Amino acid sequence: MRVGVLTGGGDCPGLNAAIRGIVRKGVEVHGFEFVGVRDGWRGVLEGAIVPLDVRAVRGILPRGGTILGSSRTNPLAGEDGVGRVRETLAEFEVDALIAIGGEDTLGVAAALGGEGIQVVGVPKTIDNDVAGTDYTFGFDTAVNIATEAIDRLHTTAESHTRALVVEVMGRHAGWIALHSGIAGGANVILIPEQPFDIGQVCAWVENRFKIRYAPIVVVAEGAVPKKGQMVVKDSSRDEFGHVRLSGIGEWLAHEIADRTGKEARTTVLGHIQRGGTPSAFDRWLATRLGLRAIDTVKDQDFGTMVALRGTDIVRIPLAEATAGTKTVDPALYSELGVFFG
Amino acid sequence: MRVGVLTGGGDCPGLNAAIRGIVRKGVEVHGFEFVGVRDGWRGVLEGAIVPLDVRAVRGILPRGGTILGSSRTNPLAGEDGVGRVRETLAEFEVDALIAIGGEDTLGVAAALGGEGIQVVGVPKTIDNDVAGTDYTFGFDTAVNIATEAIDRLHTTAESHTRALVVEVMGRHAGWIALHSGIAGGANVILIPEQPFDIGQVCAWVENRFKIRYAPIVVVAEGAVPKKGQMVVKDSSRDEFGHVRLSGIGEWLAHEIADRTGKEARTTVLGHIQRGGTPSAFDRWLATRLGLRAIDTVKDQDFGTMVALRGTDIVRIPLAEATAGTKTVDPALYSELGVFFG
Amino acid sequence: MRVGVLTGGGDCPGLNAAIRGIVRKGVEVHGFEFVGVRDGWRGVLEGAIVPLDVRAVRGILPRGGTILGSSRTNPLAGEDGVGRVRETLAEFEVDALIAIGGEDTLGVAAALGGEGIQVVGVPKTIDNDVAGTDYTFGFDTAVNIATEAIDRLHTTAESHTRALVVEVMGRHAGWIALHSGIAGGANVILIPEQPFDIGQVCAWVENRFKIRYAPIVVVAEGAVPKKGQMVVKDSSRDEFGHVRLSGIGEWLAHEIADRTGKEARTTVLGHIQRGGTPSAFDRWLATRLGLRAIDTVKDQDFGTMVALRGTDIVRIPLAEATAGTKTVDPALYSELGVFFG
Amino acid sequence: MRVGVLTGGGDCPGLNAAIRGIVRKGVEVHGFEFVGVRDGWRGVLEGAIVPLDVRAVRGILPRGGTILGSSRTNPLAGEDGVGRVRETLAEFEVDALIAIGGEDTLGVAAALGGEGIQVVGVPKTIDNDVAGTDYTFGFDTAVNIATEAIDRLHTTAESHTRALVVEVMGRHAGWIALHSGIAGGANVILIPEQPFDIGQVCAWVENRFKIRYAPIVVVAEGAVPKKGQMVVKDSSRDEFGHVRLSGIGEWLAHEIADRTGKEARTTVLGHIQRGGTPSAFDRWLATRLGLRAIDTVKDQDFGTMVALRGTDIVRIPLAEATAGTKTVDPALYSELGVFFG
Repeated sequence: MRVGVLTGGGDCPGLNAAIRGIVRKGVEVHGFEFVGVRDGWRGVLEGAIVPLDVRAVRGILPRGGTILGSSRTNPLAGEDGVGRVRETLAEFEVDALIAIGGEDTLGVAAALGGEGIQVVGVPKTIDNDVAGTDYTFGFDTAVNIATEAIDRLHTTAESHTRALVVEVMGRHAGWIALHSGIAGGANVILIPEQPFDIGQVCAWVENRFKIRYAPIVVVAEGAVPKKGQMVVKDSSRDEFGHVRLSGIGEWLAHEIADRTGKEARTTVLGHIQRGGTPSAFDRWLATRLGLRAIDTVKDQDFGTMVALRGTDIVRIPLAEATAGTKTVDPALYSELGVFFG
Repeated sequence: MRVGVLTGGGDCPGLNAAIRGIVRKGVEVHGFEFVGVRDGWRGVLEGAIVPLDVRAVRGILPRGGTILGSSRTNPLAGEDGVGRVRETLAEFEVDALIAIGGEDTLGVAAALGGEGIQVVGVPKTIDNDVAGTDYTFGFDTAVNIATEAIDRLHTTAESHTRALVVEVMGRHAGWIALHSGIAGGANVILIPEQPFDIGQVCAWVENRFKIRYAPIVVVAEGAVPKKGQMVVKDSSRDEFGHVRLSGIGEWLAHEIADRTGKEARTTVLGHIQRGGTPSAFDRWLATRLGLRAIDTVKDQDFGTMVALRGTDIVRIPLAEATAGTKTVDPALYSELGVFFG
Repeated sequence: MRVGVLTGGGDCPGLNAAIRGIVRKGVEVHGFEFVGVRDGWRGVLEGAIVPLDVRAVRGILPRGGTILGSSRTNPLAGEDGVGRVRETLAEFEVDALIAIGGEDTLGVAAALGGEGIQVVGVPKTIDNDVAGTDYTFGFDTAVNIATEAIDRLHTTAESHTRALVVEVMGRHAGWIALHSGIAGGANVILIPEQPFDIGQVCAWVENRFKIRYAPIVVVAEGAVPKKGQMVVKDSSRDEFGHVRLSGIGEWLAHEIADRTGKEARTTVLGHIQRGGTPSAFDRWLATRLGLRAIDTVKDQDFGTMVALRGTDIVRIPLAEATAGTKTVDPALYSELGVFFG
Repeated sequence: MRVGVLTGGGDCPGLNAAIRGIVRKGVEVHGFEFVGVRDGWRGVLEGAIVPLDVRAVRGILPRGGTILGSSRTNPLAGEDGVGRVRETLAEFEVDALIAIGGEDTLGVAAALGGEGIQVVGVPKTIDNDVAGTDYTFGFDTAVNIATEAIDRLHTTAESHTRALVVEVMGRHAGWIALHSGIAGGANVILIPEQPFDIGQVCAWVENRFKIRYAPIVVVAEGAVPKKGQMVVKDSSRDEFGHVRLSGIGEWLAHEIADRTGKEARTTVLGHIQRGGTPSAFDRWLATRLGLRAIDTVKDQDFGTMVALRGTDIVRIPLAEATAGTKTVDPALYSELGVFFG
């Protein structure tokens, strides 16, 4: 059996650990051969296939990123995508494909699986929004980085009687914001799932200042205020009348300063959330998913995704995993609201 | 309602986060009053009761250890332990008790619950060996610390063609060894659940040297060799004939050096595994368990323990949680054996 | 003797370590009394004086920020600033003042010293730009944080064939950029001291892409291109024609993408560079400066600043320290240019 | 010009950064060729010479250990060591040698330099005990690791009313103990340079307990009590009468427990102090020393060592650097004693 491995979408700590788990067990236990596909689905389209053996995966466990490269290319977007995928697999004699990725990558895998291509999916994303799995690897690392950043900001906030806004990743789901905000002791946490009331946010902020503690507001990049509340004011324009805010974090800091009369600053964590060595949990999870993914190939149980349930690794249909985004349950958000303000 | 909170057993990152969650929600949502019990069950025996309010829990979220102190005192060991507990609770007008601890502390809680005392348990232990919960807080932090140490040792091992043995915590269960060993890319992992064959260990070590990579052996403090294999040799005695080895880690390094002819050294991680600021996951888990523990008191659902199942917090009978130790499943250990050697 | 202590300017890891050193030695060795001044020079103007004893400095060594608070208030800006400072000192019976701060705070101290007020300065700033001292505390912590961030970005850069721009602090001096850029293996480092040629920067970036390594550009917030090179193009405006770039980092990423045709992204590290627990070096340096500052008061050697020279702590006139900014030597920058491109 | 590079003695964070600096500047600026010598002086004896070019040093900057391997072999110990070194250099056409190491390695370099072999030295050691340089790389990383460990132990010490002894590296010099002890807020610091009085140590420990803070004792592995104080008591023997203590840390904990009646535990940090990614300072220092070392070869200024003085890199005779060990100045130790007890 000859198995291809690809990593798609944004890079994510744990990808290399998963690749290593797949290759080590595939070669040493099942006797498979492997090839790597460069830069996600783009490599399938372009036939960018590289050797992948036990030697290639040595020492990669603690390294972030992916030795195979990644891209956001959608092979189904062009003409006869499925046909071109089939051709590459045939040309390089690839019997089965393991696709490691988030919603988009897995969505393509599901579609290809529906066309009879032998594919197994492994979920990854720092956003933790893939359905059907308790957690995705990359998430724990991102939350640790964001939490450490919030810890750092507390000392500045307290030294200067100043509100600090931290914008973290999460376009459609507030998992990073919620976990890091709770772990970091934020006073307000804003997530995409629940449009926020800017007046309430400012009330919480002022409340915090009253007891001499400086507030930290954690906001997911995809969070938005309630309808009609986002107005760009004169003070948020430069001397030529141009808007000088970029992102929800900056808008929030500006609005808080404007409404409360206190200083407010924004930090946008950005790409440092997805880089660097994976946390121990992410290495463990990625390794275990990798081992089970290659077992799934061995069992010829194609069209499935491996997933975490409790402490077990299970298999679910790719179609189920890609049917929707896993977002924050309103009841959970509400329960944790006890710490706001 | 007046609720007492105590922390028992070894200290553990996340204890303060749990106390904070209990008090914040108890006061702000349920309108409870709180007292802290000093130094675990000893404080109940001695009536060492201190005030505990929202002000007392400010800023403690990221701090390791426990603001309430801890001890390993067993109140049931002395005469009429239950009676003395009852007396203290009556004297300080404590209606219910939340006991945060591992096997021993929760075992006492279960026994007191059986006697009609209103108690709720919260599991904690870096060893992760409490039954009925997917994970205990403290464990993730310990695994991260051990993994980081293993990462560090790799560079020394590789620079000197030398085997390195790392002894981690785990008297009865190999969870820390298994998770940190897998996350750290150890070549051999030894756990208390499975007596090891020293010949096999040395074969793995030699195998590793052959490909120019220096081996790392992770061993839980409670691991033991198969019957009859632990012989103390002349070379492990000093010039007076005294044994100069302490702990399984030192014995292993000595044996490896003796049998393979290569240098071998031991590092015993010890107490640094249980100290310092909790990981984001442990703060999250401890906070959520704290919130649910005080809800459980509110619901008067006594004699129960809050526990993690997947991403949910559930309640289980204390008796169930304390019926046995959660150890590593042989099938899991065997599956991960693919990385040994 | 009754000594006042104040911290001015931006907060900085190590401030608390310095305060602790001053108070511990002042009380225990010299038998002094202390008061804290709240929020830098503002507290002197407003008479915001708080008790400061050995108990107050317990446990603060590893904590970032400052227990005394800080501000950027200049007491000499208003009418009769010197007179008002004198009044407060007289009112609270403060015999001498230790001012811990950067250029601005120390400049005020120098001026007050010139007026006969008994003042000793302690240099701090994450920017490392105070003259007369090899290093200021706060700098090593900031460089470690920035380096760790660059380490993280490498994995993302490599996984996506993408240029990453990291904007670090440094309005007038490029110390953080230079040290973190060299330590992090950046391919281009841009500092305020040397206007850069955008064409050269892009040539280095393209050079890097040729060998399949993705480039990291570290830029100090105060760096600027050579005259006439900073033109805002149509592509850097939004649909209304508004400029959508903020800061040199964003401009650079935009320009690199435009000129090289590759993806480029920016991360602005911002306030996380100044927060959190100090590095071991900063705790050591701050502690030693604190001890020597209070000895300087004891010796009545006022109008001086304590400073690091090699491994020694020396005293220099405040006037000398505040005569200019310590910037990066062109020869050093040029020597390190071997790593560019 | 063809230059050989070797790394000798214990591995140390920053070795790879130094090698990279040497090779990058040597090739790109001076047009030199390089070879690597495997495993320190042993490789010179055995002719273990490997290629070393710009490609070989890519990506090694943040990695601990040494890509060249190391050993403690002394080439001058065997017969005609100098002759054999000459032969290897001639056989592989090596014109000059850069030796990166501590006291022993540099001592050999000095001796070979005296015999007319063209050699330049670069100091490294986590112990910081090489004379003639303000700091050696590796030291800052080791101090950061030890400080972080002490930070962690504080929480355990405080939660259990227990004295904790931390044994750090330093056989002949107490630099790591002193810096990490001061940075970590230890209550007692014991160094090899000053035999300690065990009664005084216990008095400090008891003093600390009185104010409810648990003491942390940091001890260098080479520290010793005053003459006649180290007696092995019955309680430090096992049931067979065998001594069960290993190292000064264990002896201290045992003695403290015995004399004060409080619990005391030991943590021996061991090899984790020398492994892992270098701190930003060590990467900076190692890189700068590497650049200057190859310049020194270019200038044919042989028999010298590059060294840090303040913020400058200077050259000093190897003979001067190896004339003695740099130990802790009694005045410095005494000054910092204000924090003891």
